[in-house]
Amino acid sequence: MPSVSPLAVPLPELPPVPGVRLAACAAGIRYQNRSDLMLAEFSPGTTVAGVFTRNRCPGAPIDWCRSSLRSGRARALVVNSGNANVFTGRAGRTAVEATAATASRLIGCPARQIFLASTGVIGEALPYERLTAALPALYADLSEHGWEAAARAIMTTDTFPKAATRTATIGGTEVRLSGIAKGSGMIAPDMATLLAFVFTDAKLPAPLLSRLLAAGTAQSFNAITVDSDTSTSDTLLFFATGQAHHPRVPPAGGSALADFRRALFALLSDLAIAVARDGEGAGKLITIDVSGAVSARSARRVAFAIANSPLVKTAIAGADANWGRIVMAVGKAGEPADRDRLSIAIGGVWLARAGSVVPGYDEAPVVRHMQGHEIAIAVDLGLGKGSARVFTCDLTHGYIEINGSYRS
Amino acid sequence: MPSVSPLAVPLPELPPVPGVRLAACAAGIRYQNRSDLMLAEFSPGTTVAGVFTRNRCPGAPIDWCRSSLRSGRARALVVNSGNANVFTGRAGRTAVEATAATASRLIGCPARQIFLASTGVIGEALPYERLTAALPALYADLSEHGWEAAARAIMTTDTFPKAATRTATIGGTEVRLSGIAKGSGMIAPDMATLLAFVFTDAKLPAPLLSRLLAAGTAQSFNAITVDSDTSTSDTLLFFATGQAHHPRVPPAGGSALADFRRALFALLSDLAIAVARDGEGAGKLITIDVSGAVSARSARRVAFAIANSPLVKTAIAGADANWGRIVMAVGKAGEPADRDRLSIAIGGVWLARAGSVVPGYDEAPVVRHMQGHEIAIAVDLGLGKGSARVFTCDLTHGYIEINGSYRS
Repeated sequence: MPSVSPLAVPLPELPPVPGVRLAACAAGIRYQNRSDLMLAEFSPGTTVAGVFTRNRCPGAPIDWCRSSLRSGRARALVVNSGNANVFTGRAGRTAVEATAATASRLIGCPARQIFLASTGVIGEALPYERLTAALPALYADLSEHGWEAAARAIMTTDTFPKAATRTATIGGTEVRLSGIAKGSGMIAPDMATLLAFVFTDAKLPAPLLSRLLAAGTAQSFNAITVDSDTSTSDTLLFFATGQAHHPRVPPAGGSALADFRRALFALLSDLAIAVARDGEGAGKLITIDVSGAVSARSARRVAFAIANSPLVKTAIAGADANWGRIVMAVGKAGEPADRDRLSIAIGGVWLARAGSVVPGYDEAPVVRHMQGHEIAIAVDLGLGKGSARVFTCDLTHGYIEINGSYRS
Repeated sequence: MPSVSPLAVPLPELPPVPGVRLAACAAGIRYQNRSDLMLAEFSPGTTVAGVFTRNRCPGAPIDWCRSSLRSGRARALVVNSGNANVFTGRAGRTAVEATAATASRLIGCPARQIFLASTGVIGEALPYERLTAALPALYADLSEHGWEAAARAIMTTDTFPKAATRTATIGGTEVRLSGIAKGSGMIAPDMATLLAFVFTDAKLPAPLLSRLLAAGTAQSFNAITVDSDTSTSDTLLFFATGQAHHPRVPPAGGSALADFRRALFALLSDLAIAVARDGEGAGKLITIDVSGAVSARSARRVAFAIANSPLVKTAIAGADANWGRIVMAVGKAGEPADRDRLSIAIGGVWLARAGSVVPGYDEAPVVRHMQGHEIAIAVDLGLGKGSARVFTCDLTHGYIEINGSYRS
């Protein structure tokens, strides 16, 4: 299996975000000599919003963050890879409390303003003494240039670090948004994402951040799937340091935030697609557009039925334009669908229309398209105006390889 | 990949079922020199019941059978492999009608008493002239001993033929039940099965057959999954020739049918488990028992969330007792679950109890169990009395191999 996904995109240049300093190190949580711990510190007055996994068995850090979000205030973020601190009972809560206590002493803030996330193996006690022992040196090492190090420290089976950045103007003043994310298995829509953290120097109250994040998640992290599995640790946090000197934004946001919203949504979409590009074993990025459904919700369910179908995903891995499996996946979604109105395109070529194959369609461009790295599937149900777009990747030997021996 | 599943079971000896004669041949529908067509003829007075896929894009043979079932009468069954006659529009209906017409002329019965099923590639026109051309010779070749040939003719990616047989007594008279089935991808619970046909010489009215079949399906074909994909062709038909000389059974069935019901359910279960054993690429048969759920329905959903999780299935393929992924799958099912009451056993050893790992549990028997061919997972949710059992197989390189190049 390749060491880096063939779909990898280069890490963008990440300029400083005023009010954010970061550092990372190898704390030896699970792997030796591999960066596995990051700390981000935020200036006083930073607000925060978050969305989390809908998995019913969340990790201890999720419980902690959900409670801490009530105040809407944040001073730091501590993230480790290698151990998810999930299904660890009382020991999990102890680990979370000890980590937050250590960070809060270093920074001089309430423990509840420390946000935490963990990713990695489930069910093993997090050796949190290694985290707390590493934090003082990390704190001393904080820098406004620590972005790449942070993006790398949160990786698990990811083959490349993921980040995105944008600028936007609020009332004529430029603000910056930057984000980092990691995948790359257990990716499915009922969640925020695996881990993603977005930072801006805009000054926005926490409830407004929260609304922006919810709206942006629907079209980004909630529109990707790798394997239909929903992690117990998925966390998306959005921090606003308020260091930019733009005019005050009204509590409802409104038109003053139009450009900021656009930039945020584009950034979230970049991060989400980067996660799909690095799905475990991925050889192809697949974009699925469903139109003509009875509603947007119905279109989305049909799109995910296709995106999660092992038979569709293995056919694409094999560069086989097996559109019959797309018919099957549409039909199994349980949504309104009429076999005899269904049309399917691959790479922009309509192969099937109104319930049967298009006689003599040109196979050559379809074959070429299937051999590429980016596959476009379009399905029109011919029933209504609902549409949806989701992203996924193919299902390959690499996925089996990675997941048949993850713990060994 | 092995030519025959390591989980294969030998074909049982199948004695005649009075009133049933079978034959099979190579009609050249898709493959050369491979048996791909079977005909079964039933004595006059045979009753029939069926259950079919819930996929919204069913094949033309499903439409035909659903309509034909209204009379409850059958004189023949024609099944081909190699082409599913799905998403074939008007050509699909023409193929079905022509096949039924030819068979009905040979047998001398209404076309609507001919039942049809097709399995194989979707979206290509069924070359039905090859079927109709082959039927006269098949009809001449019918024999009460044609069981193995029939079981083989309906295979696609199956690696072994599947059949089961039982006897039962009705009012002191012995009757026989025999069935054949095929898998082995696109296997998920929202369906009857791929293809399964059950035959008995009992004399039972069609409505009673139908009730028996629905009850038996819930615990057998609707309790297996290979890959969560739901075929467009799944068909389970149950034929009763009425040739046995048992006392008349009351329309409600009742206690007179207790032994017959038991035998039927056991036979359906045998066939369903044989399909799971031959899931594409399967190296291990996995039995998942969920208890302590708030209801049986909830237990079933949790069991299927585990059975369909690619991360659970790949871990098992790698002989890795990664119970953390079982925690994840329980949590993603969306059913009531309390992380801190959850217990998990593998191979009878409880690894996790009440929300965390069992300290110092004995790993050796678990490791040995994981290396075997039959894996038992038990999950207790600790909430109520609902329980369910489902069967699946692991997700291996073989699955990718088979499905990445099925059409080529």
